[in-house]
Amino acid sequence: MTRKHTARDAAPHHLETFFLSPTRAAELVRRTGVVETMRGMAQALEEDFGRWQDFEKSARTANHSPHGVIELMPVSDDREFAFKYVNGHPINTRSGLPTVMAFGALASVDTGMPEFISELTLTTALRTAATSVMIARRLARPDSRTMALIGNGAQSEFQALAFHGLLGIRQLRLYDVDPAATRKLAANLAPHALEVVCCGSTDEALRGADIVTTVTADKAYATILGGHQVVPGMHVNAVGGDCPGKTELAAEVLRKGRVFVEYEPQTRIEGDLQQMPADFEVTEFWRVLRGEAPGRTSAAQITVFDSVGFALEDYSALRYMRALAGAAGVLERLELIPELADPKNLYALLQPPAAAESAVAARTAVAA
Amino acid sequence: MTRKHTARDAAPHHLETFFLSPTRAAELVRRTGVVETMRGMAQALEEDFGRWQDFEKSARTANHSPHGVIELMPVSDDREFAFKYVNGHPINTRSGLPTVMAFGALASVDTGMPEFISELTLTTALRTAATSVMIARRLARPDSRTMALIGNGAQSEFQALAFHGLLGIRQLRLYDVDPAATRKLAANLAPHALEVVCCGSTDEALRGADIVTTVTADKAYATILGGHQVVPGMHVNAVGGDCPGKTELAAEVLRKGRVFVEYEPQTRIEGDLQQMPADFEVTEFWRVLRGEAPGRTSAAQITVFDSVGFALEDYSALRYMRALAGAAGVLERLELIPELADPKNLYALLQPPAAAESAVAARTAVAA
Repeated sequence: MTRKHTARDAAPHHLETFFLSPTRAAELVRRTGVVETMRGMAQALEEDFGRWQDFEKSARTANHSPHGVIELMPVSDDREFAFKYVNGHPINTRSGLPTVMAFGALASVDTGMPEFISELTLTTALRTAATSVMIARRLARPDSRTMALIGNGAQSEFQALAFHGLLGIRQLRLYDVDPAATRKLAANLAPHALEVVCCGSTDEALRGADIVTTVTADKAYATILGGHQVVPGMHVNAVGGDCPGKTELAAEVLRKGRVFVEYEPQTRIEGDLQQMPADFEVTEFWRVLRGEAPGRTSAAQITVFDSVGFALEDYSALRYMRALAGAAGVLERLELIPELADPKNLYALLQPPAAAESAVAARTAVAA
Repeated sequence: MTRKHTARDAAPHHLETFFLSPTRAAELVRRTGVVETMRGMAQALEEDFGRWQDFEKSARTANHSPHGVIELMPVSDDREFAFKYVNGHPINTRSGLPTVMAFGALASVDTGMPEFISELTLTTALRTAATSVMIARRLARPDSRTMALIGNGAQSEFQALAFHGLLGIRQLRLYDVDPAATRKLAANLAPHALEVVCCGSTDEALRGADIVTTVTADKAYATILGGHQVVPGMHVNAVGGDCPGKTELAAEVLRKGRVFVEYEPQTRIEGDLQQMPADFEVTEFWRVLRGEAPGRTSAAQITVFDSVGFALEDYSALRYMRALAGAAGVLERLELIPELADPKNLYALLQPPAAAESAVAARTAVAA
């Protein structure tokens, strides 16, 4: 009598979900180095944006409330599905909570099994800065050395260090309506070989800036940057305007420059672009990366990256962090999906352990 | 000198994410009793469907692949946001994996904090059956005693026990193209005071049935139930046809009966309803629950519940299971969101512990 190879033999091998906690992720980034982590992440992003057509894309879902928004961001290729849960509640800092908190998952497209769950609060900060750098590499003037950084909250260190370490920015000019935020950023940047200038206004911060990064949090139609404040040759890295009713740039800024976006259908809804007519011309960045559209075409041109954050960036960040954590041996296991001796017998989970075993035995006897 | 109450004092209290694993969920349901769990869940469902207008609703996102689908299902009211990750891969059982695997979360709408992460593989089976019962209570004939159960896979025990324990079904007539699935279901039902008849065909299973539950898994345009097979007075509980290209009922079944749905925009895309013209009349069930639309209006009427599974059901199931698990003290903690002394200083996570402490000290000194 030949014993059949039963489903039960194979099951346990597929049912592991790995988990990366914020503590483990932070240890991993400290060990790797924050700039090196963002360098690797920018490379993963370039690989994935370079095969843009491989992905099933959609604008994220957004549930809005008076003080914030909660979003789900799914994307998939033919091998993996990724999604991120993320909120945006600028009011949170008043009660000691972060404005942005996130987690997410990678799952197998062939089976639907969620194979990796990760913190994404820290990872989102890293991937947002890595995306800004990937894009600025193609759009900012190659001789850019000075960056204005307007908005000095949770994301600002990551933007500062990514542009310093990966793009050659030497002077950073900081401004925030909250001076304590600027002091915090300056203190965090002190150990780095960066010239840091704390400014008393946006205009002061913009003095001599080759690149302007806006990364403010208020959920409001704000004008962090007016049309008169952008000058020829500038690259505007507009990170904070990322949901309906939340903008940072005057419409005139968008009109004066060439505007680049991640995924046009989503940016039309969420970006600074929401202020513009539906036929206002923009370029999806992947086309620049693949040589299908020009990036910056002259030293005097103004370029604008209207960043909102797209699911593909989280796909790249998740796969990069999983690889990094896997290599470092810091992945934990999370019991998320039940293991079943017979996948059609979910109910067996509810039988007392002894009864479940005899049921399995009975079934094996029948099948043999 | 008065010490300020700083954000740091408050933060840790808000940053706990509780976790319910499949093992703990199964223990909890065993202890509570599977029928009692579904009774409580059906009550939670009625409460939430009864305040339908409180919820921000959308059709779920679906990423399709040749062998399956991966979906995200968000919903929120003014207090909580819920979402479920769920796949559907009928081919999985061939390699020992469940067809459906799921997990999900509840988050605070005020802060965006994910406060509860739970397994939803087992919970989805419970909530799907509890939903079917909630709806059959209003649509099936009150004297219904016999149910045909077509499709005897992972979901079938839950449908059987819910209709037996909560609706008074006494005879169950089982059919599946896979006889081993029927044997498994019959064995699992053996300890219960139910008359179980294993049938060799759908027609045999339908003999004398007051209710027909179809819960098959193939991702195909299937005709599990033809127009000639439904008879006056029948209630059709059609659970398996739940994504584009996956149906169970002949169009004629829908034309012969009055059709009830969860959330019309989603069912038009995913339900058996996908076969019908856009103006084919259906009733959203919440209207029946609230007395705004009639349910069954005569003993001879044919009623059809075109079930696809809606995010609100997972909201109800998540809050019910959290309450049950909380009362039983079986919730675990999951480190998912980093705790920050200063919510604007995410970067502090990347500083060596000693440096981070002195940074906090420096900051406190400045603020004092």
